[in-house]
Amino acid sequence: MFDSTVYSSRRDALRRGLASRALADGTILFLGNRESPMNYPDNCYGFRQDSSFLYFFGIALPCLAATLDLGSGKATLYGDDATMDDIVWTGPQSTTAELAALCATAASRPRAALAADVRRAGAALLYLPPYRADSRAELAELTGRPYAAVNAGASLPLVEAAIALREVKSPLEIAEMDKAVAVTVDMHKAALSTARAGMLESDVYGRVAQVAYASGGGLSFPVIATTRGATLHAHGHDRRLEQGGLFLLDAGAEGASGYAGDLSTSFPVGPSFDERQRAIYELVLRMHRKACSMLAPGLKYRDAHLAAAREGVLGLKDLGLMRGDPDEAVGSGAYAFFFPCGLGHMIGLDVHDMEDYGEILVGYEGTERSELFGLKSLRLAKALKPGMTFTVEPGLYFIPELYAKWEAEGRFAGFIDYAAVKPWLGLGGIRNEEDWLVTEAGARRLGPEFDKSVAAIERMRG
Amino acid sequence: MFDSTVYSSRRDALRRGLASRALADGTILFLGNRESPMNYPDNCYGFRQDSSFLYFFGIALPCLAATLDLGSGKATLYGDDATMDDIVWTGPQSTTAELAALCATAASRPRAALAADVRRAGAALLYLPPYRADSRAELAELTGRPYAAVNAGASLPLVEAAIALREVKSPLEIAEMDKAVAVTVDMHKAALSTARAGMLESDVYGRVAQVAYASGGGLSFPVIATTRGATLHAHGHDRRLEQGGLFLLDAGAEGASGYAGDLSTSFPVGPSFDERQRAIYELVLRMHRKACSMLAPGLKYRDAHLAAAREGVLGLKDLGLMRGDPDEAVGSGAYAFFFPCGLGHMIGLDVHDMEDYGEILVGYEGTERSELFGLKSLRLAKALKPGMTFTVEPGLYFIPELYAKWEAEGRFAGFIDYAAVKPWLGLGGIRNEEDWLVTEAGARRLGPEFDKSVAAIERMRG
Repeated sequence: MFDSTVYSSRRDALRRGLASRALADGTILFLGNRESPMNYPDNCYGFRQDSSFLYFFGIALPCLAATLDLGSGKATLYGDDATMDDIVWTGPQSTTAELAALCATAASRPRAALAADVRRAGAALLYLPPYRADSRAELAELTGRPYAAVNAGASLPLVEAAIALREVKSPLEIAEMDKAVAVTVDMHKAALSTARAGMLESDVYGRVAQVAYASGGGLSFPVIATTRGATLHAHGHDRRLEQGGLFLLDAGAEGASGYAGDLSTSFPVGPSFDERQRAIYELVLRMHRKACSMLAPGLKYRDAHLAAAREGVLGLKDLGLMRGDPDEAVGSGAYAFFFPCGLGHMIGLDVHDMEDYGEILVGYEGTERSELFGLKSLRLAKALKPGMTFTVEPGLYFIPELYAKWEAEGRFAGFIDYAAVKPWLGLGGIRNEEDWLVTEAGARRLGPEFDKSVAAIERMRG
Repeated sequence: MFDSTVYSSRRDALRRGLASRALADGTILFLGNRESPMNYPDNCYGFRQDSSFLYFFGIALPCLAATLDLGSGKATLYGDDATMDDIVWTGPQSTTAELAALCATAASRPRAALAADVRRAGAALLYLPPYRADSRAELAELTGRPYAAVNAGASLPLVEAAIALREVKSPLEIAEMDKAVAVTVDMHKAALSTARAGMLESDVYGRVAQVAYASGGGLSFPVIATTRGATLHAHGHDRRLEQGGLFLLDAGAEGASGYAGDLSTSFPVGPSFDERQRAIYELVLRMHRKACSMLAPGLKYRDAHLAAAREGVLGLKDLGLMRGDPDEAVGSGAYAFFFPCGLGHMIGLDVHDMEDYGEILVGYEGTERSELFGLKSLRLAKALKPGMTFTVEPGLYFIPELYAKWEAEGRFAGFIDYAAVKPWLGLGGIRNEEDWLVTEAGARRLGPEFDKSVAAIERMRG
């Protein structure tokens, strides 16, 4: 974690943000995460602290909670000190008072004191929307709301003030993200040097996970390591890599500090792309470069998405797979047959940063969300600001199930040449993904150089 | 998963078990697990199906539920078929009707039909105790019970009947466990050939995880890969391996079928044990052999625990660390200063098999549970039956915090020579763990041969 004053400064900034939203009094309750049971109460997944708790209190331990009094600025950390039995099983641990000092929190109290303190706050209690059932149940008990009504009771001004802070990364945070992306690049290079025809997807997955864990952190999301690139989120790892096919890795490290990396790399199982694969791969790179060339403060990210889509349409027309007016092909949503997802999403302490706060609040802010297939999956549309970090991940996909449905319906037949597309259906999908930071002057990639050109990929696969 | 008739046979056996407990009518509700959110609703941990659902229905997919009518034997699977958006994101999927056929379940219904069907069952609804908050919340809604009262409403006869079935492993299950233990042996051999002074614990953890994932399965519990063997469950991986120290790996694979392996190996960071380490290591092996030599149908597992403890006391006396009458040292609980945990636990679809059903019901069955420090942590005490599978994992630990407390209190000073123990405190902890099966004739180890003798370990470290 960072120096303790980082956390008190963030809490002060949050108070100012709420005061500017006419909320100068009240108590914010931050519930840290508990352990998450896998198949019985004591067999738990790897602990992941709540990102809001990490941002404002920094401590990545289970079963903590904290309050922040908006009037006085007093923060209190709630937790239970270890017993001798705890120490025998899990080793010596800091007391709650020691933890409180680490995040510049003046007071510490046993967890059991939380209920009475929350009751005292009464209607002036503010909380963020919970995304785990145990937090929702605890908030129901603490606030007296029905379980199903807990999320509706979350504080919109609190969410807005937290987004305003967290969406602009500080230099300390950017350094952590550069590190997480560096580990992520190592994961992808390990896959490029490991994957061979005859292996299982799980062999590549294992190697990628090894690099993430060995770095001292973990995985920022479930690894996609697949021969089925046409499926956007293919999570099984039981297929065999076949000569002539493509492999798609979408994976990221989470640093020990909690910050995420998220990259996607597509490459041939053999030493080189075939002609069609190379054509689509290079077109995805052109879409990528087009979007990245536009990144700067003030750019609406939706415009980068649409520009990448237009670049894709132009290339697909050249390949004889699309036809008609490019702008209409983009405006109508026909392009989404090949590019059915969004160009990217915010990234930070979460790989989809702050998605628990609500995708529209985080990614749209005064920008309307489309209901068109494809564009409706765009998670970030609003204007960019210096300090924002997000992914750029255009892709082109040949999805047999979507083809069967749309072709039968004759959907967008003026734009999509289904007869011409048919022989390409086995290609799968190609995605290229990087993580970017908006600067005052423009934008830069996060992490170290990672050359994704055809020549570089084929060199790594040779 | 196994052939579909395996699941209908198990459900028939469950019905017979309940009929013999005077429950011939009613409806059992099995809630499959949902995805478990990590840091926002859509970023989830690796999916783990509920083990009861796996045992009786076999399908390892999220968001399923099933009912079993005790009177007619009719089973119904509840789930929702994929939409085109689902297929674009996660690929083509079996329909609920197709899944129902895989587990010989006659009927399939949309998930939304579950509420009405459960209402019809009324007071005759039986369910197992939930261990995840989302399942508890769903049961609260389905049954109208308060959230906090859901677990108390679980059916004891159902739990007892399920234990009676699941505690005796079939040949099919034993084959799966042999496979899981084989992968686990590979994980431990990979650690033995990887770990070197100067590395971080996370380097070993990464290598161990790689082997598990590459096998097509996963990890059956959070890996303990530690230089701090004195902490029974040390889950951090941030320490450096130092020449002269010990390393303790406690890790297991979970096969794709859900069955678990669980082994512990202790070894020197350098090429060989030092004199004290060797003395304790060999004593732990003697405790291990003593316990294993007794394993047979009818043996109360608590007696194996106590025999291992007595073997430890004899050896610690020889080393001058304990004194007094060995039987009294065991009976009083003094031995637990060095061996503060249980000898083992059931293993199967869960690494602590069926622990969600209740440790006493699973492991004690008419045997009283001790409240003594150490013995109270024994999870399996009851008489063994052919087909039971469990771990044998004696260990000896030098825990500085426990030493400080007990020495100051003069606790068991007639048995523990604190002055003599003091120079051993830096040794840490040594645990040796294997997985065993009770047969008609006696018992056998699960998985392949894995020689843990000093000579074999030092050969692997050389």
